[in-house]
Amino acid sequence: LRVGIVGLGLIGGSFAKTLKKYDLASEIIGYDHNEDHQEEAMKLGIVDSIAKNTRELLGLDLIVLAIPVDAIISFLPNLVNIADDSVIMDFGSTKELISKAIPEKIRKNFILAHPMAGKEKFGPSAAVDDLYESMVVVLCDTHLNNPKALNKVETIFSTIDMRIVKMDAHEHDIHACYMSHLPHAISFALANCVMNHEDPKSIVALAAGGFRDMSRIAKSSPNMWSDIFKQNRENMLESIGIYESQIKKIKSFIENEDYDQMKEWMKKANRLHELI
Amino acid sequence: LRVGIVGLGLIGGSFAKTLKKYDLASEIIGYDHNEDHQEEAMKLGIVDSIAKNTRELLGLDLIVLAIPVDAIISFLPNLVNIADDSVIMDFGSTKELISKAIPEKIRKNFILAHPMAGKEKFGPSAAVDDLYESMVVVLCDTHLNNPKALNKVETIFSTIDMRIVKMDAHEHDIHACYMSHLPHAISFALANCVMNHEDPKSIVALAAGGFRDMSRIAKSSPNMWSDIFKQNRENMLESIGIYESQIKKIKSFIENEDYDQMKEWMKKANRLHELI
Repeated sequence: LRVGIVGLGLIGGSFAKTLKKYDLASEIIGYDHNEDHQEEAMKLGIVDSIAKNTRELLGLDLIVLAIPVDAIISFLPNLVNIADDSVIMDFGSTKELISKAIPEKIRKNFILAHPMAGKEKFGPSAAVDDLYESMVVVLCDTHLNNPKALNKVETIFSTIDMRIVKMDAHEHDIHACYMSHLPHAISFALANCVMNHEDPKSIVALAAGGFRDMSRIAKSSPNMWSDIFKQNRENMLESIGIYESQIKKIKSFIENEDYDQMKEWMKKANRLHELI
Repeated sequence: LRVGIVGLGLIGGSFAKTLKKYDLASEIIGYDHNEDHQEEAMKLGIVDSIAKNTRELLGLDLIVLAIPVDAIISFLPNLVNIADDSVIMDFGSTKELISKAIPEKIRKNFILAHPMAGKEKFGPSAAVDDLYESMVVVLCDTHLNNPKALNKVETIFSTIDMRIVKMDAHEHDIHACYMSHLPHAISFALANCVMNHEDPKSIVALAAGGFRDMSRIAKSSPNMWSDIFKQNRENMLESIGIYESQIKKIKSFIENEDYDQMKEWMKKANRLHELI
């Protein structure tokens, strides 16, 4: 396969490295508007060459969009003239708006994929060749795809040891909200609580595993995450509302010294781990 | 040293294992009101014997209270007749109420210690011999201690590679609230959000690193944590209030589509990691 990777950060870079590891690509061509990223990706051997313009991508077998979700939508017009058997795949964390924005002409060739993997670091230097192994990838609205195109990406994901889950884009955005977008909002909020304290440094000196885990994803990229919150706006507002009512609950248990009810509430939270 | 460990769960069991690993105890005697824990701790070699009653602890060189914070306070009357050079140390996660509850007669012998370490599992089988290595231990109100007693525990903590931080009990409880108690409340709330959804199982099927990290401590013991929230009630209410205002912020950024302000808010959160 000749593969184009648009966006050479953690997500795109790690996918390129994974394709090489499993010998799935004969050639990988990178595209990134950030010249430092272009240079870094070449130096790190993530890609074989850098495309100078988007036309160079049109004849490739597979084009992967690993850029922020708003950028994916703006990028689509560049791809309307791909070859008939080219496959495009986006790795965005939201799906419904992207699904609606895909031009009719390339709809069959366009696979909506969300690999449920990531870490808080970003840029080409953060890319690793085992980010995706054993993780879930969600494919959305696949009934709209050319079966041959779908088969091509399913084979890739199976080969790199990912578990494929299919659902429609609307459902995906709700699920991803609870499993990823809401947790990020919560982590940013906790980090800002501490940063607004009069002496964050002396507080953070006591950080142990609990706080480290809860604040880790507050390191994530503001550009990427503000786009995600924007595209998943309705679900975010709803889930934050539901979350706020849970925070009100624990607050009122403490306020009213209702510790028996609080323990029941905690036991219910414990049960999450029968599912995970 | 002949050491008594009251409470043979994760915290006490791990301390016993650590003392053995560093050859710091000639004999370790366990005490636990839970007979299953007694048996398990003996079977796992965590302790050398089990005390039948609290009088057997009074002549030991060091007595460690590794039980929930309310239980620590109820246990204190059992210890008023310790030998003059016995040292008592509690490992509670809150300190101010315990500090105030220590009987005058043993105040000099009583070290308030909070090892900032833990994990979400509990019971003797969760105990490990490296839980405390390279972690912080906070010692509180040490001006009230006999210098010899203080020196004894400082030597132990240094030997097992812990970093000692000293502060007064009131300050400790505020710091511990932000670094540990509030994050636990947040994690329980997030877990309950998901558990209240109509189909938690299918949502959790998409869980990746972010959600796993954010929900890990929602596995924690309800008995232990309801005691902590109770003893740190004022600080919890204040910090939850501050946290709620951060959640309101992200909600209103999304509601008002104020994504530039949101990015600034996220960048501020990112800066936490210059401190951690």
